[in-house]
Amino acid sequence: MARFSVTYWLGAAEATEALQRAGDVALEQTVEIPRDIVPAGYVEDEILGRVEDVRPASDGRGGFFADISYSDDDVGGDFLQLLNVVFGNSALKTETRVEAMTLTEAIGAICPGPQYGNAGLRQRTGQSSGPILMSAIKPVGLSTRELADLAHQFALGGMDMIKDDHGLANQDTSPFPERLKACVEAVGEANRKSGHNAIYVPNITGPANQVLDNAFEAQEAGAGAVMLAPALVGLDVARRLSADPSFTLPIVSHPTFGGANIITPTTGFSHGFYFGLLSRLMGVDAVVYPNFGGRFGFSKVECRSIADHCSMPFGSLKPILPAPGGGMKLESVPAMREVYGNDVIYLVGGALLREKSDLPGACRRLIEAVRP
Amino acid sequence: MARFSVTYWLGAAEATEALQRAGDVALEQTVEIPRDIVPAGYVEDEILGRVEDVRPASDGRGGFFADISYSDDDVGGDFLQLLNVVFGNSALKTETRVEAMTLTEAIGAICPGPQYGNAGLRQRTGQSSGPILMSAIKPVGLSTRELADLAHQFALGGMDMIKDDHGLANQDTSPFPERLKACVEAVGEANRKSGHNAIYVPNITGPANQVLDNAFEAQEAGAGAVMLAPALVGLDVARRLSADPSFTLPIVSHPTFGGANIITPTTGFSHGFYFGLLSRLMGVDAVVYPNFGGRFGFSKVECRSIADHCSMPFGSLKPILPAPGGGMKLESVPAMREVYGNDVIYLVGGALLREKSDLPGACRRLIEAVRP
Repeated sequence: MARFSVTYWLGAAEATEALQRAGDVALEQTVEIPRDIVPAGYVEDEILGRVEDVRPASDGRGGFFADISYSDDDVGGDFLQLLNVVFGNSALKTETRVEAMTLTEAIGAICPGPQYGNAGLRQRTGQSSGPILMSAIKPVGLSTRELADLAHQFALGGMDMIKDDHGLANQDTSPFPERLKACVEAVGEANRKSGHNAIYVPNITGPANQVLDNAFEAQEAGAGAVMLAPALVGLDVARRLSADPSFTLPIVSHPTFGGANIITPTTGFSHGFYFGLLSRLMGVDAVVYPNFGGRFGFSKVECRSIADHCSMPFGSLKPILPAPGGGMKLESVPAMREVYGNDVIYLVGGALLREKSDLPGACRRLIEAVRP
Repeated sequence: MARFSVTYWLGAAEATEALQRAGDVALEQTVEIPRDIVPAGYVEDEILGRVEDVRPASDGRGGFFADISYSDDDVGGDFLQLLNVVFGNSALKTETRVEAMTLTEAIGAICPGPQYGNAGLRQRTGQSSGPILMSAIKPVGLSTRELADLAHQFALGGMDMIKDDHGLANQDTSPFPERLKACVEAVGEANRKSGHNAIYVPNITGPANQVLDNAFEAQEAGAGAVMLAPALVGLDVARRLSADPSFTLPIVSHPTFGGANIITPTTGFSHGFYFGLLSRLMGVDAVVYPNFGGRFGFSKVECRSIADHCSMPFGSLKPILPAPGGGMKLESVPAMREVYGNDVIYLVGGALLREKSDLPGACRRLIEAVRP
């Protein structure tokens, strides 16, 4: 069977230690029994992870990169088992980080990838070039009427995408079905006035037996995309939706609750892998993450790496759009333009809501700065 | 509305910094807009997180504890939104860790907790006192016949619970429905011979649209419990099952892929919260995690803290059983007995499989050491 390869960073001091640790990962991620009792034949030859290469990390941080290959047979056509092989128990180890992977045809069959991606999102929003603008209706606690009014004003002001705050679930102040209907109507009405093509992006994150239904409910109600939090709803939900021909909306992912996977430099995933490659495997079209210079600690380099991994060649999976957010202001635009160029969604929330007396005007000033 | 409180550890140097950071968390976890534009009235008075107390951390590690209270209205009856409030975006911050929480009646209604817990698992396995013994059939790549044969021998040897390896999904070598049927039969046959009451615990982790079905399929086929990996399938699956009166099996959770949430001391969750309290909120009856002294880096103190959080008073949620595993050997028994006492499931895999020529004999020797 075909084999795919995962590149791990290992915080080892010496090559011999790195080689030993790579062998441990290969064992842990596949057979999970001591090396000397791995059954000879098929299990040892095919199923057992294979250390293909170990070399000093080339990017100055010390440690080593190890390429380990796994068989399509380890995965058995199941996306969560693929992730389990890539980084299951080894996620419990320090000084071990996932950096890159290759794909096989079998993985392509499990993960057809984003239905829309960068090009599709541009078609859907009518922004053929330049950054796309997204805002969020919030806070939790506002009534459906108030939230729909915000959505209406954002759309009137020319924002391309208007998403739910990720904390908007099914609270009594604005139950999901009621908010969905009201915001689709409010954005549609603004579009009729403005001639724009803004889309409403409801948060479908919800109970295990309801999240897929929420997605289709959003589609039927006329939403333009859906947003979900993979770390909460599980990592197969977006993939399942993107692989379903009857589901025809773009998917936006939100990073809430998943932070520990990337915020320490020697554990979890590289920023590029977690937000870029993993999102594309999941079939996500746009990935929200904290921008540099805002309330979170991501660096410019980390953010640029996320954007790179959103668009670099990765099997036949479409390039997607990075959607940095978290404290972005009008003054941030020049620095962001330098880092991201045109293939980006600017997610701006609080800075616009501050100018509540003329929200459409605030949107227009932002758009003018972003797409002069 | 009633309010619940979450205790965060904040790695701040000074009290004023800790207070500032606590205020940031309260804002981030609820309204996610700048403090000065939080709408007066209901949103500010009820929805906004409230810093109740900030004090130096009492356990010698430096930094501060902050208690922040949130309204039941923030949650709106949705478990994932509860987790979003407890640690959504703040999971993206370093020097911020979740340590404890209190419950309200409304949370109790969302999270009825484990159906079985410690007492129920003992009843189900017939082990009224002393440690329970669990083993795993593996590796991936063995045929269903070979895996079922292992299950049979473990059961004959007196193991109480026999679980799938967490890497066993739906591979061609042993598809889920085939393995389920064969292992239920193999364990049942061994029970008839031995007079014991061993239970088979299939891994139901799988596609988003199938995982709940897998659980009920396991129940109908006669499995004795189910195992799932919350970090992969999503954090609501176990809760959904445990809250469903028509689902009547104990739930075992596996830590794969979730490691980054606990392995660095200043981010994510404390070991006790993540494996103990969160598992109980999810309705998990037994929680697998890496034992001290094995292949992973958990300390004795961290492991004891997990066990404590499995049984400490926590609303009306039943005490559950810690299931430490990962490289446990016969020689580890005295040290484990000292740390865990009787309320524990010993998960022993590789060390038994090493003695393949007489697996039941190896099981009996282990049991003799564990329950002399």
